[in-house]
Amino acid sequence: MTSPTSQMTNPSAVLYAAGDLRFEDRPAPSLQDPYDVLVKINFVGVCGSDVHFWTHGHINNKRPPPTGLIMGHEASGTILATGSCVTRVAPGDAVAIEPGVPCRRCKSCKDGVYNLCPKMRFCASPPDAHGALTGVYVTAEDFVYKMPEAVGLQEAVLVEPLSVGVHAVRLAGVGPGECVVVMGCGTIGLMCAAVARRFGAGRVVLVDVVEGKLGFARGWIECETFRPEAGRGPEENAERLLEQLGIEGPLGLVGVDTVIEASGAASSIQTAINVLRPGGKYVQTGLGKDKIEFPIVTMSEKELLMRGCFRYSSGDYELAVSFIAKRLIDVKALITSVSPFEETAKAWDLTKNGQGIKNLIRVARLDTRSVL
Amino acid sequence: MTSPTSQMTNPSAVLYAAGDLRFEDRPAPSLQDPYDVLVKINFVGVCGSDVHFWTHGHINNKRPPPTGLIMGHEASGTILATGSCVTRVAPGDAVAIEPGVPCRRCKSCKDGVYNLCPKMRFCASPPDAHGALTGVYVTAEDFVYKMPEAVGLQEAVLVEPLSVGVHAVRLAGVGPGECVVVMGCGTIGLMCAAVARRFGAGRVVLVDVVEGKLGFARGWIECETFRPEAGRGPEENAERLLEQLGIEGPLGLVGVDTVIEASGAASSIQTAINVLRPGGKYVQTGLGKDKIEFPIVTMSEKELLMRGCFRYSSGDYELAVSFIAKRLIDVKALITSVSPFEETAKAWDLTKNGQGIKNLIRVARLDTRSVL
Amino acid sequence: MTSPTSQMTNPSAVLYAAGDLRFEDRPAPSLQDPYDVLVKINFVGVCGSDVHFWTHGHINNKRPPPTGLIMGHEASGTILATGSCVTRVAPGDAVAIEPGVPCRRCKSCKDGVYNLCPKMRFCASPPDAHGALTGVYVTAEDFVYKMPEAVGLQEAVLVEPLSVGVHAVRLAGVGPGECVVVMGCGTIGLMCAAVARRFGAGRVVLVDVVEGKLGFARGWIECETFRPEAGRGPEENAERLLEQLGIEGPLGLVGVDTVIEASGAASSIQTAINVLRPGGKYVQTGLGKDKIEFPIVTMSEKELLMRGCFRYSSGDYELAVSFIAKRLIDVKALITSVSPFEETAKAWDLTKNGQGIKNLIRVARLDTRSVL
Amino acid sequence: MTSPTSQMTNPSAVLYAAGDLRFEDRPAPSLQDPYDVLVKINFVGVCGSDVHFWTHGHINNKRPPPTGLIMGHEASGTILATGSCVTRVAPGDAVAIEPGVPCRRCKSCKDGVYNLCPKMRFCASPPDAHGALTGVYVTAEDFVYKMPEAVGLQEAVLVEPLSVGVHAVRLAGVGPGECVVVMGCGTIGLMCAAVARRFGAGRVVLVDVVEGKLGFARGWIECETFRPEAGRGPEENAERLLEQLGIEGPLGLVGVDTVIEASGAASSIQTAINVLRPGGKYVQTGLGKDKIEFPIVTMSEKELLMRGCFRYSSGDYELAVSFIAKRLIDVKALITSVSPFEETAKAWDLTKNGQGIKNLIRVARLDTRSVL
Repeated sequence: MTSPTSQMTNPSAVLYAAGDLRFEDRPAPSLQDPYDVLVKINFVGVCGSDVHFWTHGHINNKRPPPTGLIMGHEASGTILATGSCVTRVAPGDAVAIEPGVPCRRCKSCKDGVYNLCPKMRFCASPPDAHGALTGVYVTAEDFVYKMPEAVGLQEAVLVEPLSVGVHAVRLAGVGPGECVVVMGCGTIGLMCAAVARRFGAGRVVLVDVVEGKLGFARGWIECETFRPEAGRGPEENAERLLEQLGIEGPLGLVGVDTVIEASGAASSIQTAINVLRPGGKYVQTGLGKDKIEFPIVTMSEKELLMRGCFRYSSGDYELAVSFIAKRLIDVKALITSVSPFEETAKAWDLTKNGQGIKNLIRVARLDTRSVL
Repeated sequence: MTSPTSQMTNPSAVLYAAGDLRFEDRPAPSLQDPYDVLVKINFVGVCGSDVHFWTHGHINNKRPPPTGLIMGHEASGTILATGSCVTRVAPGDAVAIEPGVPCRRCKSCKDGVYNLCPKMRFCASPPDAHGALTGVYVTAEDFVYKMPEAVGLQEAVLVEPLSVGVHAVRLAGVGPGECVVVMGCGTIGLMCAAVARRFGAGRVVLVDVVEGKLGFARGWIECETFRPEAGRGPEENAERLLEQLGIEGPLGLVGVDTVIEASGAASSIQTAINVLRPGGKYVQTGLGKDKIEFPIVTMSEKELLMRGCFRYSSGDYELAVSFIAKRLIDVKALITSVSPFEETAKAWDLTKNGQGIKNLIRVARLDTRSVL
Repeated sequence: MTSPTSQMTNPSAVLYAAGDLRFEDRPAPSLQDPYDVLVKINFVGVCGSDVHFWTHGHINNKRPPPTGLIMGHEASGTILATGSCVTRVAPGDAVAIEPGVPCRRCKSCKDGVYNLCPKMRFCASPPDAHGALTGVYVTAEDFVYKMPEAVGLQEAVLVEPLSVGVHAVRLAGVGPGECVVVMGCGTIGLMCAAVARRFGAGRVVLVDVVEGKLGFARGWIECETFRPEAGRGPEENAERLLEQLGIEGPLGLVGVDTVIEASGAASSIQTAINVLRPGGKYVQTGLGKDKIEFPIVTMSEKELLMRGCFRYSSGDYELAVSFIAKRLIDVKALITSVSPFEETAKAWDLTKNGQGIKNLIRVARLDTRSVL
Repeated sequence: MTSPTSQMTNPSAVLYAAGDLRFEDRPAPSLQDPYDVLVKINFVGVCGSDVHFWTHGHINNKRPPPTGLIMGHEASGTILATGSCVTRVAPGDAVAIEPGVPCRRCKSCKDGVYNLCPKMRFCASPPDAHGALTGVYVTAEDFVYKMPEAVGLQEAVLVEPLSVGVHAVRLAGVGPGECVVVMGCGTIGLMCAAVARRFGAGRVVLVDVVEGKLGFARGWIECETFRPEAGRGPEENAERLLEQLGIEGPLGLVGVDTVIEASGAASSIQTAINVLRPGGKYVQTGLGKDKIEFPIVTMSEKELLMRGCFRYSSGDYELAVSFIAKRLIDVKALITSVSPFEETAKAWDLTKNGQGIKNLIRVARLDTRSVL
């Protein structure tokens, strides 16, 4: 028996409201620009933001339009057709897809920070930027990245979260020999830690309250781990962490070089600020509550350098692809499950329930290059 | 009638506890090192931290030792004697004194951020770093700065807070054409605004809740001002500020280039984060409550660059002196009063009660170069 | 009597070979893209590269195609029509035109250095990028810059060389208080010096062998000047310059903070390297002989920071416009002559013969906003 | 039979003039400052500059005083005694010695670039800074670096040239994924290449005219190599190198990210400039002829970032020690010979004749910690 979506020409997973996901046959897009490429989607990853959208029916109070929104922003696929000016990829190429295409004309785009483009068209963003949980997808050639033969299209999905890690570690300016603490052991925290190691960090310390996650991390990459105790305050947990690291001296005068905060939790942020040395660097990549209690005086007196961190920008995808291609970061180990397209909601549930690290959805079975 | 301190050899203003200030004849220090200089103190400025110390008897829970602590860290004086290796100044020179001398040997000192030296000896810091509210004072030659003939020793006191402004504006990386908002119109806020102007800022906007302070600012330097309304939230005040500036568009997508926060107030900090454009820069120089409610998600999504800011470091005093010497910043206009040494407590009271901008204490009458 | 070109629909100054300039009626271009604008050209400036092209028939061995090349890359004009997506300018607006439009898709464009785009389409570049010495011209809306009412269209031409100065001073990272030496007192040298002053340079020193040029510079902006003596070597001239500046000590241990080299002459480059302090900064913007004798060991031992400098990039035109609009840099004083379109070759001759600083060509008489 | 120097209390290798090396019993130095340490010297490395000094009798026209100059600046030793304030090392510790101690008070020292201190006291520099080819040596505690137990004192000598590599790669800002070309395959070139690899460089290419050196390099670290042909010009060799790397396109528009020039040869420098991509980075660490023919226009039009590079500065020694301690760089493989102290001149001859990579001199047999 074939699935209900198998006879559609462009089956798409469309969200209408919280819990209201429908599989619909949407018109297949076509090349609009000589630099466009048409991609057959193979795999799409599940991200916490998908789950939030599905559960609450909105992201940052933005909701799907009445006609629904195609979901999905972590995707890999196979090139089906290319515009007349395309030179970087050819039909049959396996690619990772960068989900946001900027306007190329605003100050942010010209300044080299296209991730801050106010006109960014990002997959699955209300009101009208549809995502990649669909049969075929059109984008610009410079936002797809050819994957080497040896890398599978499942791994190609992981380029997206790995690029988040690359961006965070670059913003942190991690250099060889540094002691780097990563707060939070979810997908993004793991990616940041692995990237920091590849940037030459001398020590990488992952912090999480769940011992199982720390255990996985220790098995996955060369790192140390620390579990804060819930009953203790952030200053105390920071002291314990420094003590474990063998960094001695009164809090505020000693500490680690860099923290990448990938949890968004208030207690974690507070611990992070306390664990840094004077002149240390802090990047906030995790998103939690909009406002949290923040030790502003400690931040100021230690003259910390803090960076917000939003998605990825020029060069991040390339570097992430090269880390995977050269087997410097083993993203395959993070793939927990692969669900068929029709069971998208089940895949979201896995992530919602904290089952596994990265759950994938198989859109098309085409895992080879012989696509046309 | 001479004052009770006039016959002392080294009269010093010594704090023992909250409200317990005593004038004592302390032993005059002598040159310890061939690079040392002996300075006769002429004027000392009153800073908010002095007032806090005097009112509460501690700074950051650090208290004077049982033998008391000589107060004062904004000081000018006249060189009395110099060690055998001193070449930068000579007896008779009028100087501004940088109040903190670092260890010169730690990682911070060698990395070019001596303000973060954990062994910094900073004037009037418990337990044992005495200040400059005293007759004669010894320090290293590279921490006194010769003032030009045309600049008085009263103005020389203002080099200290001006250096705080120089440091903040440098950390913010203010460049020509930028739109810079300074939150808070106290001495430090004023200094930051004046320095930002000298760094070429295209627009400088001072923000304060007290209209009188804004009026003074407008008369003092070329600037715009904005008064937040207490009844409105930080997002709303940020919107109003942008509207006044003629910067249009939804909050979060547009905004100013740089904010220097010089109030330390939670509402001000929150407004500041909201008024910045994506990729904007933020420097925290004001110190208020240890912890405040902070819009961390907005900071992260706009990928802001935040810097803590602590005192001043290499080159800041030199630049502050040159701004005064070239009459590029008129610090004289900020001097509200000059009290005699014996009335130190009264001078502190003026500042405590918000009377005036910078209140000075005259330690010695020697305002000329003919000191020896 | 009307001129021979006055009845053409799109009169254009077309170069075929050295000395072979023809006035032809070329087809008027039309909007190609919804972000395009159609500009009536008012004035075009004469640049040394135009003169080189005209004299030698090539630039970097690149020659006009058999069908000729429309010349001109420093231009101002008036918006005639706009594409459907254009929002920044409207018909009737007076604009300065940035002469190069990048591809927006390559690594350089995305990294924020579009001036390094290998697919840049730059005015009057062989084989097929025509220039702006023509009646009407089409470009993208984000490469024209609206001039304020008070600024004339003649001054608008000067935005181009001023942007070269902005770019050079930005690359040099000139900050307040620095001592900046500019080698060469041509248009670009003057622009660099004026911009350095606006970036807060404490001292600006212009260097040239022609006393008349130095005299003009001293009358134009607040600066010092130095004339090297031909009979002396670069080390000796560097020593004399430092002596004049009152910077004492053996060459190699003391010196100035920043040099912007805007002559391209070997002796000037050598003097520049010798005049810098250890850790000083050097920007090469002048172009002379391809290869020169260079003091590489001195450069290395003083750990100098050198930057090549090519045209202008993101934000440079905006800042140049604001300097002119706010009357912070008086570019009007640099305009020596305005020739009618038909006398383009005479205008080029003026520059070739070193007569004046900036010679302009009037393409259209439309100096007002009532253009349509 | 004991050697003639074995009965001296402080045998020292003293240079008087070209070829005039004498072994003398010099007074043993003592602790001068509470932060000083007294070190028994174990091994000293031979550097090209030693050989130059010995051969020509001068360095940069600076000659030994009539009383001679103790040679040697790459040294390891064992702590014999420590001043009263010393906390970082203790008697018996094995240490690498950083040979230059700065003044700690000048602008360079305070700016974080102590390598540019004009009052630097650097081993074996005329007129009066004696070196470490001597029995015991006194320096400051923060210029000796404790070596882990597992690292021998011979390897500790190599920290000096490795620090040169660390400094160069840091100045180049090498980041993960970059393509880095190192010109010259001597000790410093090898060090730069090995460090670039540790900074995450995606490709490292060593260039030398001697095939044997390239072969050694390929066996020592993961790298590619290229041998320029003497009969071809620098442009042609640059094209060939790019072709070999698979970087296609016209010279000037494509190229590598970073070059570290470690040969000082004119042809190598010219090739290096041509092999860089627009916006590429160049560091000059090798020293050859004072002046060379330099392609300044290419440098300028590609807007290259060039850095001079002088010795090492804050943090370089620490990072070099950690690379050795963690076995990330195998410096042991670079040690070719160990000569007894009395045969210092023979060791210099080995290096002069190009025999081996790093030749060492054993000053004391104390290779253990039980020194006192």
